[in-house]
Amino acid sequence: MTASPKTVPPSVPPALDQPVGTLSLRAIAMPADTNPYGDIFGGWLMAQMDLAGGTRARQLAGCRVATVAVTGFTFHKPVYVGDEVSCYTALTRIGRTSLTIDVQAWVRRHTSAAVEKVTEGLFVFVAVDLEGRPHPLDLKDVPLDLPASGA
Amino acid sequence: MTASPKTVPPSVPPALDQPVGTLSLRAIAMPADTNPYGDIFGGWLMAQMDLAGGTRARQLAGCRVATVAVTGFTFHKPVYVGDEVSCYTALTRIGRTSLTIDVQAWVRRHTSAAVEKVTEGLFVFVAVDLEGRPHPLDLKDVPLDLPASGA
Amino acid sequence: MTASPKTVPPSVPPALDQPVGTLSLRAIAMPADTNPYGDIFGGWLMAQMDLAGGTRARQLAGCRVATVAVTGFTFHKPVYVGDEVSCYTALTRIGRTSLTIDVQAWVRRHTSAAVEKVTEGLFVFVAVDLEGRPHPLDLKDVPLDLPASGA
Amino acid sequence: MTASPKTVPPSVPPALDQPVGTLSLRAIAMPADTNPYGDIFGGWLMAQMDLAGGTRARQLAGCRVATVAVTGFTFHKPVYVGDEVSCYTALTRIGRTSLTIDVQAWVRRHTSAAVEKVTEGLFVFVAVDLEGRPHPLDLKDVPLDLPASGA
Amino acid sequence: MTASPKTVPPSVPPALDQPVGTLSLRAIAMPADTNPYGDIFGGWLMAQMDLAGGTRARQLAGCRVATVAVTGFTFHKPVYVGDEVSCYTALTRIGRTSLTIDVQAWVRRHTSAAVEKVTEGLFVFVAVDLEGRPHPLDLKDVPLDLPASGA
Amino acid sequence: MTASPKTVPPSVPPALDQPVGTLSLRAIAMPADTNPYGDIFGGWLMAQMDLAGGTRARQLAGCRVATVAVTGFTFHKPVYVGDEVSCYTALTRIGRTSLTIDVQAWVRRHTSAAVEKVTEGLFVFVAVDLEGRPHPLDLKDVPLDLPASGA
Repeated sequence: MTASPKTVPPSVPPALDQPVGTLSLRAIAMPADTNPYGDIFGGWLMAQMDLAGGTRARQLAGCRVATVAVTGFTFHKPVYVGDEVSCYTALTRIGRTSLTIDVQAWVRRHTSAAVEKVTEGLFVFVAVDLEGRPHPLDLKDVPLDLPASGA
Repeated sequence: MTASPKTVPPSVPPALDQPVGTLSLRAIAMPADTNPYGDIFGGWLMAQMDLAGGTRARQLAGCRVATVAVTGFTFHKPVYVGDEVSCYTALTRIGRTSLTIDVQAWVRRHTSAAVEKVTEGLFVFVAVDLEGRPHPLDLKDVPLDLPASGA
Repeated sequence: MTASPKTVPPSVPPALDQPVGTLSLRAIAMPADTNPYGDIFGGWLMAQMDLAGGTRARQLAGCRVATVAVTGFTFHKPVYVGDEVSCYTALTRIGRTSLTIDVQAWVRRHTSAAVEKVTEGLFVFVAVDLEGRPHPLDLKDVPLDLPASGA
Repeated sequence: MTASPKTVPPSVPPALDQPVGTLSLRAIAMPADTNPYGDIFGGWLMAQMDLAGGTRARQLAGCRVATVAVTGFTFHKPVYVGDEVSCYTALTRIGRTSLTIDVQAWVRRHTSAAVEKVTEGLFVFVAVDLEGRPHPLDLKDVPLDLPASGA
Repeated sequence: MTASPKTVPPSVPPALDQPVGTLSLRAIAMPADTNPYGDIFGGWLMAQMDLAGGTRARQLAGCRVATVAVTGFTFHKPVYVGDEVSCYTALTRIGRTSLTIDVQAWVRRHTSAAVEKVTEGLFVFVAVDLEGRPHPLDLKDVPLDLPASGA
Repeated sequence: MTASPKTVPPSVPPALDQPVGTLSLRAIAMPADTNPYGDIFGGWLMAQMDLAGGTRARQLAGCRVATVAVTGFTFHKPVYVGDEVSCYTALTRIGRTSLTIDVQAWVRRHTSAAVEKVTEGLFVFVAVDLEGRPHPLDLKDVPLDLPASGA
């Protein structure tokens, strides 16, 4: 069996001004999550995004997964105390033992109805067995949510 | 002006086996949230539900809110480490300065696709101004998500 | 064997302006426990009260207990950073497998000597065995601390 | 004015097998407080004792206090997950700007009724003003709870 | 003024089997930092690395910095409870307002003397003023610790 | 075999204005670690120092260790949010089953290059086996980092 990644047809462009994918995590940014300047600590946001992507990957793979790489993490805007932070996860590539998930963090500020994208990152997870060894995936019929980046 | 609460028509029964309302919070239950028996600590779940209900109330009211009462909190099933915990919020009553929100917590266990309701509670929030004093709401056109309990 | 709850004689009214019951938890409210407005997060207080009630129930039952319901939770006053928060627990009802505990949270502000009640809730716990199944209580001789609410 | 510390008469020996002083903090040791071996982390216990002593010192002094020294900290027994941990504070010396507080930590294990002393330490706090500068105390009439160690 | 990045001479290859750069953070991985499988949560590690890189960038820039991107994050090995985790930071590029820092996480397991690299990532920080606006750096004489990746 | 502690020659005085020993822990003081006055909570600092000393003792002993005493803890200066806190550990005495470690906490404030000692304490650890019983050490050839206090 080959490991060639599946791609979505180029005719389905992702919407750029709306969240894409599945809502995998939604949290309220609290004072306990701030950095010394009083904004939300970037590391807290990365941790939430890893948790969101890992949960989605586990649900898709049907088994335990481990984060093996993160690429193209960009921080567009700060997150403030009280913001509702939503992490959306989109499957972008299926490899032999790995899943690539695009994780976007969007916020809704205080009493606003509008949402803004604050961060985005591409996470690669590997399916692992109970001893932590990579383990082949059987995901032929799972559609991608977004074209693989660079595809 | 009267404070008579609005109700939804009796012809719209809530679905009992599916989450009702808005997904206001979604978290992964972590080992740091466990009680001494290794299950998820009930107090952690209450805190998440208060946060979910308070966020929804703040978004509806368009101002700061404070929790003033919780009634009818019932715990149906335990929450385990690794569960995806989702808190749904449904507006059930609008008073002069208060909003009543039904908060339901549902879990998805490990790699399962099915969801189960684990807890439900009715939270009452009061809109407050910057000094913490109650403050009249202007929510005439906001529909309720669920009939008021006992209605 | 019947499961009729025991009650205290109506001639022993609870004192309303003093804490009632056993001091089961005492904590200092810290900045890490604040909500986005800088007051202490209501969910933190609920979690402390659940912990206080659960500890008292476990000590009375002599075995593991699980929270099954919370009724009549009311928040009277805010809790501020630095407050000494004390949770008092009073046994109000003994069922066949359940214990009802009234949990009151009182605070002492900064350098004040006076205490104020900030929150109160009625928690129902069920005695469970190691597999989490309800388990009959043998508490015939245990006196109640407060009349059952509504008795 | 002299700064000679007051002492209690030598005829009032402290009871050694019962907690001495005021119950300043009571917590449940949780899984989140464990060290890598699964017991409760000693540093967590030190932090609770500092909080207990500091609260007591602040209440006695009627102003902000800062920890300046800890002497004679001894750990007698381990603390386990689920233990009820109680910190008792006894005033042992009053200086010109400082208070010495003996802090004892006692535990009640799981469903046991008996308590055991696990740790004890002598904390010195200094009364400070809003800029953090030492500030004379006016505590002539405050009785000591325990003779000063070594007195 | 040009923004051409400085590079170190190609004759100074980085040592691959030893930590490179400044020790910016050293922590012990605790049970509270675990994922649902009992290993250390990848998001915790990312957060520590962001903190390490941000501290180093702040010290170099002499002002507040904000994380704007993370590239090439790779996880080589798991981190276990009890591991001593050390984050080394190496300056690899100086832009007009940005600093690129290579952050490596190395662990020492339990009682072992040997260290192993577990994760590495390239973080880009931007110097910002008090309002969070990018702010030019004056770092002409600061040597790089590592050649810029791809240089 | 005797348990007489080894000492370093009196001709090697410790430098008083520079950190002494091994860098065992380095952390950034965060808002979540503050006391009600907004400075870093003394208990947090004690917990970090216990962790630093315990890690060093474990690495020296080659087995699990438990804190049994802390003596001579002095707090020289406050720690502020954003400070880089470094804990240095110096072996000062080897007993039959115990190790005495001097732990010093030094800070670097915000963008400053200078470091200042904020706290120092002497921790005694005992080597223990898996059941927690004291266990003889075999450390004849391990040099002390500092003369034993009082030597």
